[in-house]
Amino acid sequence: MTTCYINGKYKPLSDTTVSITDRGLQFGDGVYEVIAVYQNKVVDMNLHLRRLKLSLRKIDIKINLTQKQFESICFKIKKINELKMGILYIQITRGNQPTRDHKYPNSLKPNIIIYSINKDLDNMEKLASKGVKASLYPDIRWLRSDIKSTSLLGNVMAANFAKKNKSHEAILFDHNDNITEGNSSSIWIIKKDICYTHPISYRILKGCTRDKLIKILKTNNLQFKEKAFSLKSLLTADEVFMTSATNFVMPIIKIDKYKISKGKPGPISMDLRKKFIQAI
Amino acid sequence: MTTCYINGKYKPLSDTTVSITDRGLQFGDGVYEVIAVYQNKVVDMNLHLRRLKLSLRKIDIKINLTQKQFESICFKIKKINELKMGILYIQITRGNQPTRDHKYPNSLKPNIIIYSINKDLDNMEKLASKGVKASLYPDIRWLRSDIKSTSLLGNVMAANFAKKNKSHEAILFDHNDNITEGNSSSIWIIKKDICYTHPISYRILKGCTRDKLIKILKTNNLQFKEKAFSLKSLLTADEVFMTSATNFVMPIIKIDKYKISKGKPGPISMDLRKKFIQAI
Repeated sequence: MTTCYINGKYKPLSDTTVSITDRGLQFGDGVYEVIAVYQNKVVDMNLHLRRLKLSLRKIDIKINLTQKQFESICFKIKKINELKMGILYIQITRGNQPTRDHKYPNSLKPNIIIYSINKDLDNMEKLASKGVKASLYPDIRWLRSDIKSTSLLGNVMAANFAKKNKSHEAILFDHNDNITEGNSSSIWIIKKDICYTHPISYRILKGCTRDKLIKILKTNNLQFKEKAFSLKSLLTADEVFMTSATNFVMPIIKIDKYKISKGKPGPISMDLRKKFIQAI
Repeated sequence: MTTCYINGKYKPLSDTTVSITDRGLQFGDGVYEVIAVYQNKVVDMNLHLRRLKLSLRKIDIKINLTQKQFESICFKIKKINELKMGILYIQITRGNQPTRDHKYPNSLKPNIIIYSINKDLDNMEKLASKGVKASLYPDIRWLRSDIKSTSLLGNVMAANFAKKNKSHEAILFDHNDNITEGNSSSIWIIKKDICYTHPISYRILKGCTRDKLIKILKTNNLQFKEKAFSLKSLLTADEVFMTSATNFVMPIIKIDKYKISKGKPGPISMDLRKKFIQAI
């Protein structure tokens, strides 16, 4: 049985609910974070909680929990649920508003939810050793993907297009045929030993795993550019990989019908994955 | 006390909840409709329920309620809650998925919620007689606004920008400075006795009130074009008005600092409002 935190209480998952007047439910009016727990270690909690605070500020939700309090709830949930491998999921909505109106009063009390889900992240290791397939999908998401909001239907449609095509992830391209990111990941290419990923903008999320990998690239004196790249550059790259909280560094070896790096995980991608896991 | 329908049961609003694993809550993965009840009459139920079915099909949610069953639940809710003026709110989410994954299995059971909210729609009459103010805001919504989804944070941000500027509605402009729609309405201009509104596309919702007004325009031999218009055309229009399920036809007399039709509701807008209300 999984235990959840909601607004100061700890309850069984099956009893943890929100009102149907919750603005998260009615308007996708909230933000979230997914924090990986790998081999009993919480990965980059600090980066995730700082980003959560930033997302809240961007959509004008005020909460009265400090980062320390979030940390202690996360660790308590991890302990109660005996979580050794999986994720901590945090969601904050603007609160309940029975009158249902796009406009919100300042007086709402946010709903704060934290629980954990066991996931076999070792399975990711097996996937990474073979590399994964991805599918191309137009980036139909809203234009503020820098905010980690729960208004995710665009991402959901992309992910399920990928699923139908037996792909691990959808890679999103904008109206200029530039790659923005994956349905829930950052996308990277390697050309002539240089790593490229989309620069920070309103169109992409400042990924925690992305940030950490940039540090690793710098520490190891590997060449790296934050620069938008086209669909064509993607398909002709020497290597392609994605990063996310649960995928870490995941080599992509096929995009729709196009093979990447001869259909095998590229050596630089695999080396970066190794370095990333060492850094956890 | 308001009564709600949820998944076959009728409950008090305060007891009506969804699991925190509901995909509507976690991903904005669902659709909705708002149906006005005005002077004890349900407005355009048929149009709304047909659009609901279309939204469900577009995001691949299957439900086992017929339109007739929806109608009978709506009328039952209206009766129990003695609703004479206000809205019927329908929301359908993809269902609960405790593993939280963008990808969904086909086996999920959708959550179906219907309840009513009393709203003083006569107050709209007073607003209309004076006309309302609107504010301009960039259209940051996702690129499938033709789907009436609950992933609405873009709309919420626009509406609250309007609220901060003491405006009734935000008017959204795209990257070409064309007007798409309002934060929860269709936007219309009148130039030289011709009505213009944005043509049907992925960027706008096929409004039920919009559809009905088009019929009224045709019946009355009024000139009308579905054609995108620019921000400049908006600000120099003879008249501007918005349409929505609860606003019917609402004259806009000021947009940010710019007066429209000399700061008074235009005669054609007011005539269309009258004709619309007569047609209910």
